[in-house]
Amino acid sequence: MLSARARTAESSAIRDLLRHAESPGVLSLAGGLPSAAMFPVDDVVRAANGVLRDPSTLQYGLSEGSTELRTIVAGPSGDPDRIVITTGSQQALDLLGRVLLDPGDDIVVPDPCYVGARQALGASGATLVGVPGDVDGLDTDRLADRLAAGLRPKAVYVVANFDNPSGAVLAPVRRRMLVALAERYGFIIIEDDPYGALRYAGTEIDDIGPGSDRVVRLRTVSKTIAPGLRVGWLVGPQWLVDAVVVAKQSVDLHTSTVTQAVAAHLLGQDGWLDGHLAELRPWYRDQRDALVEALTEKLPGAAFSVPDGGMFLWVRLPDVDTAGLLPSAIRSGMAFVPGSAFAVDRDLGELLRLSFATVDRSQMGGAVDRLARSLARAA
Amino acid sequence: MLSARARTAESSAIRDLLRHAESPGVLSLAGGLPSAAMFPVDDVVRAANGVLRDPSTLQYGLSEGSTELRTIVAGPSGDPDRIVITTGSQQALDLLGRVLLDPGDDIVVPDPCYVGARQALGASGATLVGVPGDVDGLDTDRLADRLAAGLRPKAVYVVANFDNPSGAVLAPVRRRMLVALAERYGFIIIEDDPYGALRYAGTEIDDIGPGSDRVVRLRTVSKTIAPGLRVGWLVGPQWLVDAVVVAKQSVDLHTSTVTQAVAAHLLGQDGWLDGHLAELRPWYRDQRDALVEALTEKLPGAAFSVPDGGMFLWVRLPDVDTAGLLPSAIRSGMAFVPGSAFAVDRDLGELLRLSFATVDRSQMGGAVDRLARSLARAA
Repeated sequence: MLSARARTAESSAIRDLLRHAESPGVLSLAGGLPSAAMFPVDDVVRAANGVLRDPSTLQYGLSEGSTELRTIVAGPSGDPDRIVITTGSQQALDLLGRVLLDPGDDIVVPDPCYVGARQALGASGATLVGVPGDVDGLDTDRLADRLAAGLRPKAVYVVANFDNPSGAVLAPVRRRMLVALAERYGFIIIEDDPYGALRYAGTEIDDIGPGSDRVVRLRTVSKTIAPGLRVGWLVGPQWLVDAVVVAKQSVDLHTSTVTQAVAAHLLGQDGWLDGHLAELRPWYRDQRDALVEALTEKLPGAAFSVPDGGMFLWVRLPDVDTAGLLPSAIRSGMAFVPGSAFAVDRDLGELLRLSFATVDRSQMGGAVDRLARSLARAA
Repeated sequence: MLSARARTAESSAIRDLLRHAESPGVLSLAGGLPSAAMFPVDDVVRAANGVLRDPSTLQYGLSEGSTELRTIVAGPSGDPDRIVITTGSQQALDLLGRVLLDPGDDIVVPDPCYVGARQALGASGATLVGVPGDVDGLDTDRLADRLAAGLRPKAVYVVANFDNPSGAVLAPVRRRMLVALAERYGFIIIEDDPYGALRYAGTEIDDIGPGSDRVVRLRTVSKTIAPGLRVGWLVGPQWLVDAVVVAKQSVDLHTSTVTQAVAAHLLGQDGWLDGHLAELRPWYRDQRDALVEALTEKLPGAAFSVPDGGMFLWVRLPDVDTAGLLPSAIRSGMAFVPGSAFAVDRDLGELLRLSFATVDRSQMGGAVDRLARSLARAA
């Protein structure tokens, strides 16, 4: 009775396992949940009280999103008509899959790749072509080779800043090369940037192809304000934005006008976001440092780079099957995501992703102790 | 560059026209917007203040929706695990299209049909097969004939209570026949019920096939609390619910936890919804009566039934091309939706839909005056 798409929807054994791991007593470094302790609750309450008094906040709204919010996120030099408000970035991925991809099309994704992107972009029936990366992000030389050999993707998906799961930042020279390849081979770059604002060290890098009509940018308040608002947006060329708006109307009419108004109220206050980020950044940096310290001390065999931002450490445990280790780790009272969950074509079985965002730093050492204990038992 | 789906997405000349009609000075009887005057603003503000203090309200949530809201809408005899919270009923239609329909499949829809259902269900690439109805709703004898002649739809879509646009209520005998046909021919009944709670006369009719695992029910707070919350839900057989949850995760992770919590806070208060509906019903009934009176007085050639609930009058203007009339009506300062916008296969060119929900009743006469004027000019 189910459609072909529904029958082939990605099975999620690991997700099911991890779901049981989100129980009290388990220190989960698995999920990419921002810290609830840092949600700007008072400001959100004030914003809600401010906007809900206007009945239009509760009414149907435009499919492209509220004019107020689009104007604010466009900024003084941007064009609100090139923006669509989405129910988080996840919906932007789904909408782009719909309007860009047909079954049989190719789309390049990094290998490893954010699971939600794989699901949303794969739902179109397109083939996901994995291109590996390194600490400098997607390997654009490898991509160039594949293109020279005949690959003709409709789009290339990247998380250029503090990639999930790898933590990598796409190097400036690779950003420029990616745009050059997009222009030469006629593909769209889907640049997903949930973590860019969470930089703890180093200097900011220019966006991919500023001004290029080959780039569609995905933004969200999920990691900077709160994911429960489900407010994100995409910025792209007009032909693509127009198609996304038509699809958006069909999929949910529009994103909640209530949560859009709350986001607009906060983002529209001069300096509010900068002030909030000034609190978030050192807090997450300390979280990262606590996890790095715990790993260094308690798990000397673990190999990883320390990312300058984001939420994740991407850790190699040589000769360990991390997927096989997970049930034992959960029994020991901690959780992680095994590398295989992010794999497109590569064997990432020795890797695992640890989030430093969710668990309080005082418990980071305890979580790594439990991981070390389950490792010792497995050896 | 666009996908096949995006290239064939329904063009919306009428929608574009109507969009320009939503300007100040135009009395629009076109949109199905609930009256902003009746939004329970104070209760929503109190609910928001109550729920936002809990940081988990701002966190990521379950793809199937919050356990609290699912438990409340399931009721004491229902099963929360058979429920998925959706971003309005529109998203439920989209998700069902995804998990049930493949290109080449048939799905039966009423003719005329709610435009958003046609878009969402048609996006799957399935063929929409229109079956006409009358004042008793979808003509199940005609449907039986089509089935006997070989039609094998995956699903049948109905708005059984105060249909959009026709206002019809599916008669009890037809409800029973529809379930019998579903069991015999193996299709799913998608029962969309945004308007059932807005009954102003007559007695409530039993749901289609209570307890039948052939029925998936779509519910929403859009017409009873506020559409801006974008909170709806579907109730269906377990295999279908499970597939919808997998799809839901891919399309937007989950519906806003904030607006879900607000809805749960309101719906969870004993007697709150009944009290609110007790205010809504007579108010909308008076709105309906004002429009009926204006039409009877000022447009004696108009033919229509008076529905016992909902938001719409479905009006025939004999020998008038209503789509052709629309631009002139907008110039006269009023708007409606021409019948052709709802047509699947039938010629509905003499019909138009008038909403009595949005414009204040004091202006209803003025709106119909303007319609009469544009008609007189066209004659």
